[in-house]
Amino acid sequence: MSSSIAVNKTAHPFNKQQLESVLTQRFFYAPAFEIYGGVAGLYDYGPPGSALQANIIAEWRKHFIIEDSMLELDTTVMTPAPVFEASGHVARFADWMVKDAKTGEVLRADHLVKGVLEARLVGDREARGEKSVADTSVDDGEKKKKKKVKAIATRLPDETVHLYESILAQLDNYSGPELGLLCKEHKITNPDTGNEVSEPQAFNLMFGSSIGPTGQHPGYLRPETAQGHFLNFSRLLDFNYNRIPFASAQIGRSFRNEISPRAGLLRVREFTMAEIEHFVDPLDKSHEKFHLIKDVTICVLPRETQAEGKTDLTSIKVGEAVSTGIIANETLGYFVARIHQFLLKIGIDENRLRFRQHMSNEMAHYATDCWDAEIYSSVGWIECIGCADRAAYDLTVHMQKTGKPLVVRQSLKDPIISEKDVVEFNNKIMGKTFGKDLKFVTEAVKDIEADEPRLARFKNELAQGSTTLKVNGQEFKLTTDMVSVKHTVIKQTTREFTPNVIEPSFGLGRILYMLLEHSWWTREDDQQRGVLSLPMAVAPIKVLIVPLSAKEEFQPLVQELRAEGVLCRVDDSTASIGKRYARNDELGTPFGITVDFASIKNRTLTLRERDTTRQLIGTVEDVTSIVCALIKGDMTWSQAEGRLDVYDGVQAVE
Amino acid sequence: MSSSIAVNKTAHPFNKQQLESVLTQRFFYAPAFEIYGGVAGLYDYGPPGSALQANIIAEWRKHFIIEDSMLELDTTVMTPAPVFEASGHVARFADWMVKDAKTGEVLRADHLVKGVLEARLVGDREARGEKSVADTSVDDGEKKKKKKVKAIATRLPDETVHLYESILAQLDNYSGPELGLLCKEHKITNPDTGNEVSEPQAFNLMFGSSIGPTGQHPGYLRPETAQGHFLNFSRLLDFNYNRIPFASAQIGRSFRNEISPRAGLLRVREFTMAEIEHFVDPLDKSHEKFHLIKDVTICVLPRETQAEGKTDLTSIKVGEAVSTGIIANETLGYFVARIHQFLLKIGIDENRLRFRQHMSNEMAHYATDCWDAEIYSSVGWIECIGCADRAAYDLTVHMQKTGKPLVVRQSLKDPIISEKDVVEFNNKIMGKTFGKDLKFVTEAVKDIEADEPRLARFKNELAQGSTTLKVNGQEFKLTTDMVSVKHTVIKQTTREFTPNVIEPSFGLGRILYMLLEHSWWTREDDQQRGVLSLPMAVAPIKVLIVPLSAKEEFQPLVQELRAEGVLCRVDDSTASIGKRYARNDELGTPFGITVDFASIKNRTLTLRERDTTRQLIGTVEDVTSIVCALIKGDMTWSQAEGRLDVYDGVQAVE
Repeated sequence: MSSSIAVNKTAHPFNKQQLESVLTQRFFYAPAFEIYGGVAGLYDYGPPGSALQANIIAEWRKHFIIEDSMLELDTTVMTPAPVFEASGHVARFADWMVKDAKTGEVLRADHLVKGVLEARLVGDREARGEKSVADTSVDDGEKKKKKKVKAIATRLPDETVHLYESILAQLDNYSGPELGLLCKEHKITNPDTGNEVSEPQAFNLMFGSSIGPTGQHPGYLRPETAQGHFLNFSRLLDFNYNRIPFASAQIGRSFRNEISPRAGLLRVREFTMAEIEHFVDPLDKSHEKFHLIKDVTICVLPRETQAEGKTDLTSIKVGEAVSTGIIANETLGYFVARIHQFLLKIGIDENRLRFRQHMSNEMAHYATDCWDAEIYSSVGWIECIGCADRAAYDLTVHMQKTGKPLVVRQSLKDPIISEKDVVEFNNKIMGKTFGKDLKFVTEAVKDIEADEPRLARFKNELAQGSTTLKVNGQEFKLTTDMVSVKHTVIKQTTREFTPNVIEPSFGLGRILYMLLEHSWWTREDDQQRGVLSLPMAVAPIKVLIVPLSAKEEFQPLVQELRAEGVLCRVDDSTASIGKRYARNDELGTPFGITVDFASIKNRTLTLRERDTTRQLIGTVEDVTSIVCALIKGDMTWSQAEGRLDVYDGVQAVE
Repeated sequence: MSSSIAVNKTAHPFNKQQLESVLTQRFFYAPAFEIYGGVAGLYDYGPPGSALQANIIAEWRKHFIIEDSMLELDTTVMTPAPVFEASGHVARFADWMVKDAKTGEVLRADHLVKGVLEARLVGDREARGEKSVADTSVDDGEKKKKKKVKAIATRLPDETVHLYESILAQLDNYSGPELGLLCKEHKITNPDTGNEVSEPQAFNLMFGSSIGPTGQHPGYLRPETAQGHFLNFSRLLDFNYNRIPFASAQIGRSFRNEISPRAGLLRVREFTMAEIEHFVDPLDKSHEKFHLIKDVTICVLPRETQAEGKTDLTSIKVGEAVSTGIIANETLGYFVARIHQFLLKIGIDENRLRFRQHMSNEMAHYATDCWDAEIYSSVGWIECIGCADRAAYDLTVHMQKTGKPLVVRQSLKDPIISEKDVVEFNNKIMGKTFGKDLKFVTEAVKDIEADEPRLARFKNELAQGSTTLKVNGQEFKLTTDMVSVKHTVIKQTTREFTPNVIEPSFGLGRILYMLLEHSWWTREDDQQRGVLSLPMAVAPIKVLIVPLSAKEEFQPLVQELRAEGVLCRVDDSTASIGKRYARNDELGTPFGITVDFASIKNRTLTLRERDTTRQLIGTVEDVTSIVCALIKGDMTWSQAEGRLDVYDGVQAVE
């Protein structure tokens, strides 16, 4: 929102505790089942959190689904086991956990290594007299509070510091056994007890269940929405008139039985995702709208930089990143740019956004390139969106498991003409001659046909009357009346292939939390008064209505706004007007309208803007039409200031 | 949509198979995991189904949440077991299943009784030479196809017909053992095998799982969203400035492990619900907006009518239904009317909608009144929305289990003054005298205090110096220095109470399917050409764009529509224009715009309306602005016909 008055939003340092207490008090979200003592990693969204999430989803739908005409899906959460056996999730969708050798307490291995090494680095910086800001927390499995690893001021040798930094920079790169080795080599123990920890064990993160009354059908809750897209590929392709590229999109709930959910929305056991699967020709990953985003400047951290143990960021235009090969292809680049634009649109700070490329070991073996949109927050850089080129992996595994052809068939404008030698069989004579061995003989000949030099020898021998095959230790004589090799012209009129998949995958809860941090500030003149400067499009409530007297005056306005689908809230509580405004600043409500005794007499309303706290006054009709225009984005606050008088806090009542 | 041309939508009888094949072919929805053989009761929504559902949800949010300023929630699906132990779901959220005595096949008991008795009635009508339309299907647990119970033309005695009709009219009224008795009395066997079935057994419908890495925390997937509202009651009350009435609302996924999911969306294992919990003062269930809906006419089937074994419907104004006591209170009446309005708004046929009151045994024991919105379809009347007055049950059970006060405290404007006798203790002397028995003695005196006649005797005896209590077989002497009874004036300034809950609960999948049936018809002149006359607000795609030549001409239009968040689809496939229109009629797309060679030459577009197939022609600018107005509802088709020329199928190209 543009404003004609400069507001200093950085007068006070960010205070995380203050924000979190406001978010709980105003019920953006709260631990689920709180009156039952809560369960780690499960959160409920209250009215402002639900509305904020619904608005982010509405913007997402417009930005991605509508603008790019994606095919939306809504598939089930409950999934029969064979699907996740094929996808590899049953075997591999796991985190590494270690157990305290004496207490049996469960810890996530990579979090343990991170927490302990970071604490040592903090201790080192203290010993060197430097200030540190690193978060040195280790999560444990079942308790809700994070444990801080106590940093002890101990100076480390320079090479150890470099080693630790390098380990931390590529932490996602280590396998379970490697994490175990790190614990041994660097004497990493459970910081709570000082006890050694066990060898890392894989713990599958999927919630299991059973479908149907007989208990015979094991199922899992999906840990991502993606499989629902892949399984419906043929129907989607048909819906898209059998042409690619096209993208499917889905917004829905997913579940991961995390070993160690973190406090807050950053690592939870149930969350809302938005996922896109863009199906593309493996031979042509260009994007028809690439020219529209090629000049978008993004901030990147390529894998080469990380491999050097560094985290320096580079600003680059997407067009250049693709043309120089930093980003693998146009479609991946297109989505990186669109993600960048989306995040800025909903209010994420451009200066706290980077795209980090996955390192080779970090990516799934089939992926060809992967970029995470990471957002900087009070706990450091957090992955919020992954954007991967998954090649043909997903469709291939389901095709193999089900035998259903998840492929694209394209008519070729110019048929491909090729010539080659082809074996022809006389089935009647073959059958009579070989009886039950027919199948093996035929297969052996097919193998020869596929092997050019062998086929040439085979043809030569046949030209001399006969040839002998050795199959399963037996010899079979083939004669020219049984088989012949013919030079044939082959005209291929269709091309059949398995599409590749580019997958942008959004964790909406993380994005929502980051947005809250980026939007939060406190008033220069009063550090206790916080404001959430959420953009109009995502603000949970658009207008606060504060009646200081009777209700009748604002009822037409309320009805008009609500008929337009605008969420407006009436605060007719007994709190002072200042308090009512203050708590709605904390809710991020962009505008406030006050009706008082003078208003009724004069048929006026006052209009207040959240960030500047400036107030204007005008007739009921003028204020109503102006606030509607402001909400729709048809007018800026500066323009509104030109249309209405400044309110000086005193209304003329004769 | 108003139209200046009359269209005959009832020329042909409804053909369910035709509709279902279109819904599958156009991918409104399809069995989930189809390429893996599918799982009964799990369905995926494709692009038109997802968009239709998203549009219904958007209308629901506007109609209920925004217009009535409800507090939206988004709570978790995964729920720890103690919550459902308290709510009664672990003990009682079950259906009755029977097993085939020989094959072990699982059948739902009530469905078995219904299927067999209906088949006998059909057979009876056939024997009497009457035509029948009843659906006589029995669902089985695991197979996907419904079994038809074969109707054998056998005439039944008149009293048996009446008995069967009466059983069917109150089928929801029977307990498990009663269903078992019915099977025995009426010789109801598994229609597939002719075998007898076992005694009905309860099967809990909740999907179970386990939370966390240690497996120590059993959990369930919620079978409804309601508990998430109740558990957050205190936070919601606080958000509403500690005042009631208020309503919370939630749209989300729920799960029920149905014994026998039906084909289609009518009984599924995973579904999207929308639920409202309206918290109200048990002493005052009036509704401040009741006057706005009191004249809405609804069609009702009260419990008295059903108890007589009848299904006659009555038209009545909601105001009258409440004032005559048919509907228990204003708030319940308000929601019944709002539900009625909502269903009509999205396109449900008013003549196929009724509100059926629950019979006494059918309701939960704590409920005081309950009305189901039932919609008529090809399989008869189907419950789509329940609207119940649940009294204080839910908050009470969670308060008892957790000890947390889920109550409202109201300051009383006029304090309630009362006088009564109160016992006062001298704790010091009591303690010295009774030692370890103090607790029992004190409790015994408290019991006396709560019982007026005993207290009077106690007071009298004390007035004579002392009294003796018998506690746990021991006697204790109380003297006036230990206790005294004082006449006290009590001023009660706050009232504390547990609110009652009125709960409208919507099954969105069922509503969506009913809407598809009610919207479907076939063209008078071609029974093969189907049309889905979905209202603009919920139509999945608003505009079809059919380019017969280059794309450039319509790009600005597409961009403008998409920027407005309007889903428009470009069909540039090679199919004929007639075919392209026909398949978009099946998708329910209200408008089509064609660009051809003449258009480009003349800078014109043609605009087609779905139901009438009438076409208009105008300049690119005019058609663009008119189609935007049509979509926003700012213009009717009749008005558009007045603004543009009729297109005669020939464009002037010199």
